[in-house]
Amino acid sequence: MTSRYTIGLDYGTNSVRTLLVDTANGREVATAVCDYSYGDQGVILTRDPNLARQHPSDYVTGAKVTIRKALASAKIKARGFKPDQVIGIGVDTTGSTPMPVDSNGQPLAFQRRFAKNLAAMAWLWKDHTSVAEAAEITELARRIRPQYLAKCGGTYSSEWFFSKILHCRRAHPEVFDAAYSWVECADWVPAMLTGTEAPDRLTVGVCAAGHKAMYNEEWGGYPDAEFLSQLDPGLGELRPRLRPKACAIDRSAGGLTDLWAKETGLPAGIPVAVGAFDAHLGGVGAGIAPETLVKIIGTSTCDMMVVPVSQGLADIPGLCGIVNGSILPGYFGLEAGQSAVGDIFNWFVNYLQPLGKAGSHEALSAAAAKLAPGESGLLALDWNNGNRTVLVDQRLTGLLLGQTLYTTPSEIYRALIEATAFGALTIINRFEEYGVKVNQIVNCGGIAEKNPLVMQIYADVTGRPMKVSRSAQTCALGAAIAGAVVAGKKAGGYGDYASAQKAMTGLKPRAYRPNPKNHEIYRELYALYRKLHDAFGTSSWNGNLHDVMKQLLVVRNRVRK
Amino acid sequence: MTSRYTIGLDYGTNSVRTLLVDTANGREVATAVCDYSYGDQGVILTRDPNLARQHPSDYVTGAKVTIRKALASAKIKARGFKPDQVIGIGVDTTGSTPMPVDSNGQPLAFQRRFAKNLAAMAWLWKDHTSVAEAAEITELARRIRPQYLAKCGGTYSSEWFFSKILHCRRAHPEVFDAAYSWVECADWVPAMLTGTEAPDRLTVGVCAAGHKAMYNEEWGGYPDAEFLSQLDPGLGELRPRLRPKACAIDRSAGGLTDLWAKETGLPAGIPVAVGAFDAHLGGVGAGIAPETLVKIIGTSTCDMMVVPVSQGLADIPGLCGIVNGSILPGYFGLEAGQSAVGDIFNWFVNYLQPLGKAGSHEALSAAAAKLAPGESGLLALDWNNGNRTVLVDQRLTGLLLGQTLYTTPSEIYRALIEATAFGALTIINRFEEYGVKVNQIVNCGGIAEKNPLVMQIYADVTGRPMKVSRSAQTCALGAAIAGAVVAGKKAGGYGDYASAQKAMTGLKPRAYRPNPKNHEIYRELYALYRKLHDAFGTSSWNGNLHDVMKQLLVVRNRVRK
Repeated sequence: MTSRYTIGLDYGTNSVRTLLVDTANGREVATAVCDYSYGDQGVILTRDPNLARQHPSDYVTGAKVTIRKALASAKIKARGFKPDQVIGIGVDTTGSTPMPVDSNGQPLAFQRRFAKNLAAMAWLWKDHTSVAEAAEITELARRIRPQYLAKCGGTYSSEWFFSKILHCRRAHPEVFDAAYSWVECADWVPAMLTGTEAPDRLTVGVCAAGHKAMYNEEWGGYPDAEFLSQLDPGLGELRPRLRPKACAIDRSAGGLTDLWAKETGLPAGIPVAVGAFDAHLGGVGAGIAPETLVKIIGTSTCDMMVVPVSQGLADIPGLCGIVNGSILPGYFGLEAGQSAVGDIFNWFVNYLQPLGKAGSHEALSAAAAKLAPGESGLLALDWNNGNRTVLVDQRLTGLLLGQTLYTTPSEIYRALIEATAFGALTIINRFEEYGVKVNQIVNCGGIAEKNPLVMQIYADVTGRPMKVSRSAQTCALGAAIAGAVVAGKKAGGYGDYASAQKAMTGLKPRAYRPNPKNHEIYRELYALYRKLHDAFGTSSWNGNLHDVMKQLLVVRNRVRK
Repeated sequence: MTSRYTIGLDYGTNSVRTLLVDTANGREVATAVCDYSYGDQGVILTRDPNLARQHPSDYVTGAKVTIRKALASAKIKARGFKPDQVIGIGVDTTGSTPMPVDSNGQPLAFQRRFAKNLAAMAWLWKDHTSVAEAAEITELARRIRPQYLAKCGGTYSSEWFFSKILHCRRAHPEVFDAAYSWVECADWVPAMLTGTEAPDRLTVGVCAAGHKAMYNEEWGGYPDAEFLSQLDPGLGELRPRLRPKACAIDRSAGGLTDLWAKETGLPAGIPVAVGAFDAHLGGVGAGIAPETLVKIIGTSTCDMMVVPVSQGLADIPGLCGIVNGSILPGYFGLEAGQSAVGDIFNWFVNYLQPLGKAGSHEALSAAAAKLAPGESGLLALDWNNGNRTVLVDQRLTGLLLGQTLYTTPSEIYRALIEATAFGALTIINRFEEYGVKVNQIVNCGGIAEKNPLVMQIYADVTGRPMKVSRSAQTCALGAAIAGAVVAGKKAGGYGDYASAQKAMTGLKPRAYRPNPKNHEIYRELYALYRKLHDAFGTSSWNGNLHDVMKQLLVVRNRVRK
């Protein structure tokens, strides 16, 4: 039987990756990466630290270059490989990364008069220029459409779709007025490949629309025109030009155009799946399924679960989003996350530079691994970048307590890891408190790959095995799986996600198993963490922290004996 | 008129210093230092980290060597100087540093059979082997003699006289049984110089007895025999062999013996003042007087005030000690302190080693000096070594909050300095809350001498000028003043402390004046510090800390604009 392949196109913050995957077993046959050409590592910056843009021409180039390279590489690596064995394409991107387009669906940035206008570029997910508009949207929704907020954690973010558009309307009316509509990067790339950019042909994915643009079928899709008009009449006028329906990733946006086939060497007409965000397709690539929590752990985390729509689901306070079909079709996609994990360790190593050059991640991890839980007497909160889940509060900051005159950098490093583990446990508990059972945890991302100490501490703190996804490219793999599903069974793909995931995803052989003795100590420490968490993080808590430092000393003295 | 001189003999933890001072103006004519020969820098250590002893033979050698050297130096430096111009001697030592003595008042350590027995040595102030006994004494006193605790901050310390003796009784009965009595180093050195070591001739100072041995005339001197017997019958039997009365430093312990005159070259018979602790005579040397707070700032602080006995004084909760005559005769000596100040900065620089070699005190101070109050968004508690005043709780630890992903070492360094300033302000407030007005603050010690940033922050936080004592050797200077007072006016000394201090002490010309704008910001930050202080440090506080991080961000954002 001839092998069949699909392509996962993964649009990151700094580069595009093409991953070519064998549909039979998920083998990653070839990969190619292309760094964006614009800005600083692909991100256009100015003196305003909140601004972060991308040039959409990088999206075009990135696909051409990496697909060609990956096919060339496959011809070398896979015996007898031919491009016509590729049966489908999936796309994942960062987001919310919207851009203004003209009435043909072409980015305004491609027009000569806007070529250097940053407001006409793609507004990258981490662009924070729209803080005031986000507050305005939150405020209005709280007053007249509380249901909108209930699905996105209670606060509409400056990183999201309508905040950015409203800010453009206010600050750059010439761009706003020239734009026929706004399209997420995750929707525009599949449209580009399939020639469906025209606003009346465009297919939008429910992942971006549901998590970042308050799209929900319960209230008829995107926020209603009345709501948008109250924010700004211009926004209200935009409403009818937004698509009436958003789709899950089992739908195809169309077939690869002849032009793109020619440019890349791929067969024309192969289906391109509806796009979704990197983390969500990462969940798919890590084998997400009911009762399986997928954690993507990098600078921050994305914690994802799915619940069958048939089962029903109440709102879960503190989650960033609950969207029907945003991860897997037929399932609510649940997204939680920690605002900083690897970033906290990086801060400690790069900003504090403890022990000078002797304070690398490797050296601190090695020393921290020799410590027993509780031995340092330290306790930290993982809020250096605020708290996404469950407090949804960016105005929180880090905390470290328990320092003596002898506290060492490796003790602090371990305390910071433990703090992120306690934050992770808080998310797990929140899922379970609302009836979403967590029976398996699959980790992926840089830290899961590279730092066994972090994984072991997570196992010990949560009292649950930490499994690691087999693929080091789960996002691109998830996109390739989407390509296999839209290709369909007849073409050599799959009829549904469950069978595609079963064949194409897997775990690394080694799981990190909790040490029961360590877990017992961490149960005590977690109770103290929760006390600090609630005391500093909620307005409802009332009490006293007199026992916290003392209890840490009790644990420390017991452990040191 | 011929100049007259007195000698201050200053027994520190690592060395002895002799300071020769001109009584007319406090000019420090000559000084000589002798490092102790035993142990590690004068401190005998074992594998038990709590143990710290000294060999009393170092006390003998130290006096001989440094007095001779200082006199030799004076002959070179002061034109026409002759040793018979020296009219008196004062002594300050560490404490509580008790040692077991025989029926002649000679240290047991001088006996061949105890020559290597550490229990027969001097139990240095920082020896913590007696933690269990301290708890036992506190517990019993709380039950049956609460008045004993009211004068020493509510907790009897493992560093103090009876804890150490009781521990010796329990752990080293052979030494306890061989000891006729126990003598503080501060009392033994003057006795040695004047040949009054015999237990029935010994003069004990009220500074050591009152602050460390629960001596108070209100209840007839040392704790009563019944109380001591309940701790241990052996301790009860010791009670009658302790002196009935303790004296202030205006009393002479006797005249210098012929033998010591011969050994040192000093005139025989010159008076030696009753001994006192280094910090207390440091207060005298810094010009302590009613309404003047003297802060000795080094690794930790000692904060001292005096109140005329005639004025009366209620107990002040949280103070380490209130003792009639312990600093100046006729005044209550009030002692407060912070368990760590310089030690916290040293911890940060030496243990964390931020920025590697680029993270020296000098470099961090220089960078921290460029920051405005509130600019970092950080807030710390100065409890890395517990809290002496006002919480009297060693079981407290450090805390730092407000960290982001961009927090720098110099920001933390400044936050740690500010934390110690907030701790200092808490002590000032406590004095004033109980009617002890603070009208002037005089600083001395290593940090006051060397770190202008710390002094400026203290001025800005407290809103009060920070003055610095002229002498860099205030303890030895205070001892020399004691020598001038016991010598008396006729001999060329002084009839009382007020006139001696007026002539012999002074301030550096530069005072650190508070910046009103900075003080305003620090008032806001101090309110947050107090909230943390009370929430973590007291069992009576009840509330919520939800606003702390947010309020720090509000201040930070305002300052950064």
